[in-house]
Amino acid sequence: MQYRRLGSSGLQLSALSFGAWVTFGAQIGRSQARNLVACAWDHGVNFFDNAENYAHGEAERVMGDVIADLRLPRDGYCVSSKAFFGSVSDPAPTQRGLSRKHLNDACNAALKRLRVDYLDLFFCHRPDPDTPILETVQAMDALVRQGKVMYWGTSEWSAAQIREAHKHARANHLQAPAMEQPQYNLLHRERVELEYAPLYAEYGMGTTVWSPLASGLLTGKYNQGVPEDTRLGHDTMGWLREHLLGDSGEARLQRVRRFTRVATELDEAPAALAIAWCLRNPHVSSVILGASHVEQLQQNLQALEVLERIGEAGWQRVKAAVA
Amino acid sequence: MQYRRLGSSGLQLSALSFGAWVTFGAQIGRSQARNLVACAWDHGVNFFDNAENYAHGEAERVMGDVIADLRLPRDGYCVSSKAFFGSVSDPAPTQRGLSRKHLNDACNAALKRLRVDYLDLFFCHRPDPDTPILETVQAMDALVRQGKVMYWGTSEWSAAQIREAHKHARANHLQAPAMEQPQYNLLHRERVELEYAPLYAEYGMGTTVWSPLASGLLTGKYNQGVPEDTRLGHDTMGWLREHLLGDSGEARLQRVRRFTRVATELDEAPAALAIAWCLRNPHVSSVILGASHVEQLQQNLQALEVLERIGEAGWQRVKAAVA
Amino acid sequence: MQYRRLGSSGLQLSALSFGAWVTFGAQIGRSQARNLVACAWDHGVNFFDNAENYAHGEAERVMGDVIADLRLPRDGYCVSSKAFFGSVSDPAPTQRGLSRKHLNDACNAALKRLRVDYLDLFFCHRPDPDTPILETVQAMDALVRQGKVMYWGTSEWSAAQIREAHKHARANHLQAPAMEQPQYNLLHRERVELEYAPLYAEYGMGTTVWSPLASGLLTGKYNQGVPEDTRLGHDTMGWLREHLLGDSGEARLQRVRRFTRVATELDEAPAALAIAWCLRNPHVSSVILGASHVEQLQQNLQALEVLERIGEAGWQRVKAAVA
Amino acid sequence: MQYRRLGSSGLQLSALSFGAWVTFGAQIGRSQARNLVACAWDHGVNFFDNAENYAHGEAERVMGDVIADLRLPRDGYCVSSKAFFGSVSDPAPTQRGLSRKHLNDACNAALKRLRVDYLDLFFCHRPDPDTPILETVQAMDALVRQGKVMYWGTSEWSAAQIREAHKHARANHLQAPAMEQPQYNLLHRERVELEYAPLYAEYGMGTTVWSPLASGLLTGKYNQGVPEDTRLGHDTMGWLREHLLGDSGEARLQRVRRFTRVATELDEAPAALAIAWCLRNPHVSSVILGASHVEQLQQNLQALEVLERIGEAGWQRVKAAVA
Repeated sequence: MQYRRLGSSGLQLSALSFGAWVTFGAQIGRSQARNLVACAWDHGVNFFDNAENYAHGEAERVMGDVIADLRLPRDGYCVSSKAFFGSVSDPAPTQRGLSRKHLNDACNAALKRLRVDYLDLFFCHRPDPDTPILETVQAMDALVRQGKVMYWGTSEWSAAQIREAHKHARANHLQAPAMEQPQYNLLHRERVELEYAPLYAEYGMGTTVWSPLASGLLTGKYNQGVPEDTRLGHDTMGWLREHLLGDSGEARLQRVRRFTRVATELDEAPAALAIAWCLRNPHVSSVILGASHVEQLQQNLQALEVLERIGEAGWQRVKAAVA
Repeated sequence: MQYRRLGSSGLQLSALSFGAWVTFGAQIGRSQARNLVACAWDHGVNFFDNAENYAHGEAERVMGDVIADLRLPRDGYCVSSKAFFGSVSDPAPTQRGLSRKHLNDACNAALKRLRVDYLDLFFCHRPDPDTPILETVQAMDALVRQGKVMYWGTSEWSAAQIREAHKHARANHLQAPAMEQPQYNLLHRERVELEYAPLYAEYGMGTTVWSPLASGLLTGKYNQGVPEDTRLGHDTMGWLREHLLGDSGEARLQRVRRFTRVATELDEAPAALAIAWCLRNPHVSSVILGASHVEQLQQNLQALEVLERIGEAGWQRVKAAVA
Repeated sequence: MQYRRLGSSGLQLSALSFGAWVTFGAQIGRSQARNLVACAWDHGVNFFDNAENYAHGEAERVMGDVIADLRLPRDGYCVSSKAFFGSVSDPAPTQRGLSRKHLNDACNAALKRLRVDYLDLFFCHRPDPDTPILETVQAMDALVRQGKVMYWGTSEWSAAQIREAHKHARANHLQAPAMEQPQYNLLHRERVELEYAPLYAEYGMGTTVWSPLASGLLTGKYNQGVPEDTRLGHDTMGWLREHLLGDSGEARLQRVRRFTRVATELDEAPAALAIAWCLRNPHVSSVILGASHVEQLQQNLQALEVLERIGEAGWQRVKAAVA
Repeated sequence: MQYRRLGSSGLQLSALSFGAWVTFGAQIGRSQARNLVACAWDHGVNFFDNAENYAHGEAERVMGDVIADLRLPRDGYCVSSKAFFGSVSDPAPTQRGLSRKHLNDACNAALKRLRVDYLDLFFCHRPDPDTPILETVQAMDALVRQGKVMYWGTSEWSAAQIREAHKHARANHLQAPAMEQPQYNLLHRERVELEYAPLYAEYGMGTTVWSPLASGLLTGKYNQGVPEDTRLGHDTMGWLREHLLGDSGEARLQRVRRFTRVATELDEAPAALAIAWCLRNPHVSSVILGASHVEQLQQNLQALEVLERIGEAGWQRVKAAVA
């Protein structure tokens, strides 16, 4: 495994990490969850990504139980949580967002579900237009000083919003955000590569990117349409289906088909190739992998070897394919 | 229910909230208290207002027991307390006011009585001329940073005193007050509408207003004099009687009688109409309702519907009536 | 009882308070200690003064037990402790002084001995030339923010040292000292009246003064020499004997004899008159009384009545007597 | 024993202190460890130096047990720990370095191993190029404010790195480092005497120096080669052997042989003389002694007497010998 610093911070995350999203507490059972975490850990993964809303808190409960069960050393791994969407199905106004109340409640609830004394990373899962950024920074600062959170960050915030958080932190001697968790993949590049460009050097911002396979699209498995037994076939995943297959969906599929063709020509699994492509970006601290099968995870964990194999010429062909 | 932000903060309170003042631990028993809280909660009320001195602490004890009994989710509701008057009948000099000692003692005692780990809102119940405002701000800041209080505020402070608190907070990087709890109703408008006017934009100040019915006067029930079995008939409520019926009491009653006449013409209950009128003010975050009967509470909770029904012309008539 | 603010702070102490010095854990037993505290409390005394070194910690242990036994309400009384001299007979270098280590150790030990969660007042018992004042201010600030101490102060520091503490507090947004505990009596006036003069207005400094009777001298009981059964007769009190009767002792005794004569002429007990004289100074927040007998304490507690009785002419005569 | 202030801080350490390095949890058993600590304590040693990595944490476990067993008073002695190298044999990326995560984990683990509530001194064992110094200062500041650490410092940092830590502390009102733990002995003088020279006055920096005997070289026991049963003869001590006997080893041995000759002429044990020489430097707060035998420790503890015996002429001869 390769380890990368979370931006300019002192925390070193595995370049490939494992997320509970969609699968834990929902699609897969506990023993499968245990196998996946064990497999990831055995491959050197040290960061396990979570959020309060994944399976309404159940994902974190499973993650906490599995990690305790595997007796992973607390100082050897990192867990995250994220607050914003709430952990109940129809959250009340005070059970969501980035108010001081919800950040405190969410942090304490995540600590309990994950069975830990502190969160390594705690994210503001989305910007909250109904909470002043200063209030959020103050609340996060207090959690860091209390030792309940090591590093706090944002997820899917605009560069301007991140800047404002830093401005407040500086003016008030408060802990500044250390990282962002943006979507990043061959089909979704603008924010990470353009919008955030000045932030990396200016604030030492790290990124833990999600959806490196564009919700599975880049594996090529939807090239011929959506089968019923895949994630996109699930009713509850309607929004993914919408997002990927609706609107400009056909144009997107064309790019994916070209990409998978290049992958075949390079003799690489499309998924591992797509993940390797994310790792090429030096501003990516860790790429979060999701998986429901151990074999799938093992394959995707080979992205680092793919990265070493593919030369500049290969990447040019990948780039052209998705252009 | 409608939810409003507490000023510019990230906390969203129900526009109508429920207060323990006068009734809890005094006029009504525990089962009635339970019914009232259950009714309020079922209607979407998420803020329950308390103070150390209501029934000498007994009001908070009842509130804490009832909320625990109803198993309300801690992140779904808000409780307040207020410090200043003390919780014993004849408070010693250190058992009242806004000194660091009393604020700490009062906070810890309220947490115990209310059976919670933190107070959502903690008020300085009155200004304390015998404590420097800086000391109060420092003490409140420490409670917020310790996680024992989410938002602190003032009650019945002058605009100048509130400004001074903000000035100290800014100069020393301390948590500033987020809200005021002023009296506000058709007969008592100056402070909220004029004195505080510049504070809303400048500090993002929210307000949780008390006595929307002017101690019941605006229900019209005293239009023909004070019956013995009402709140004003109680001996212990002498000060209310004094305040409402003494001095310029007759002129006040004339305005109330005109108001109730307009309410009848508009085919609205005077109480709900008076509460709706408070809600018209966008600087009001929440209107605190008191009640000793469930029916009374249910009626008053209809104020939001009244607000939607009454048009500009109707409000002009109300305004003229109390002028 | 009269209550006075501790300088410009919000804490109100009884003008007469009770100290454990010399007597508790040493000259008197527990039941007598209990009677004294009960008597003081019944007369409205709300401040009980202690220090780590009084009877090597035993004084605080007795005070804690007695207060717990009498079930005094924690928010109704104040206790102090003081750190500097250490609580063991031959303190090691880290067991004394004003280093961060000793202040933390001393605070925690005093909390345990006094059986309380926080100290109302915590004093630096003497200036420590071997610890930077900034370190002391930082350590005290942390204790205040942790809620273990309400107000911190100094005892027998020079005005220049107190100024330096305030300067560091201001520059670093740290909690400044709120009070001094100086010796103050008719024979020892310079520091309180001259040296500290500018500090009262500038920093709102309060004072809790000790030895209002100049170690008993002002009672007149040593006017004819030192009897064997008094405090000065004790071997362990050799330093008091030295201090009072050595050197310029005779001149001092002459002034005391003139003072007791005036007291007799005014028909007042010399002790109560001397204490009343301290209370005349508006910069004195509280005068600490020591006593080994209840009758003695009761007599001295009458100083407030003496203060009301004596007019300006009377004080002029007192002043002339000790000149 | 002589006690010295840790730089300009208020902490007074014994001029000679005792370290667990190499011996505890490794070369010697628990009863021998107990005898050594007891001997040191009986001679007035009040500082026991440790680190997370000494014997992979076992050294701290032994030290904690021995100190508890001997019932040393917590306020009378000081313990240190150091974070950087990790406490397991092959530390994962998050189990070493100076990140906020590792400093928190390391501190909590050391508190547990040493069986104490706070560390008196907590060192950054080496500079960490992969962690911003600001992050380290913030993490240490939080530990100090939480009361888990009294004084934090560095070990083997460059003067420039120490300066940067102070710069960040000043700019952000954070706790600055109080001390350094550098190697210092007759053969290794440059850093302490030249590189750090301006830091002593500027920051009041104290030093707790290690290896006063240059890993035993200055005892003269390797003058004729390395016997198998000494520390240098141990396989695991290969690096020491390398460092001392490799490269410019012969020249170094020549200087040592001249030094031991002078010691003999002065009629002093070379070890005690070498330690005394370190104590001559007023910027040395404490010299850390290691020992595996009580006799050896007793001999080395005589360095203070040697210091009093040797005059300026003697030191000139020592100086010439190692030039």
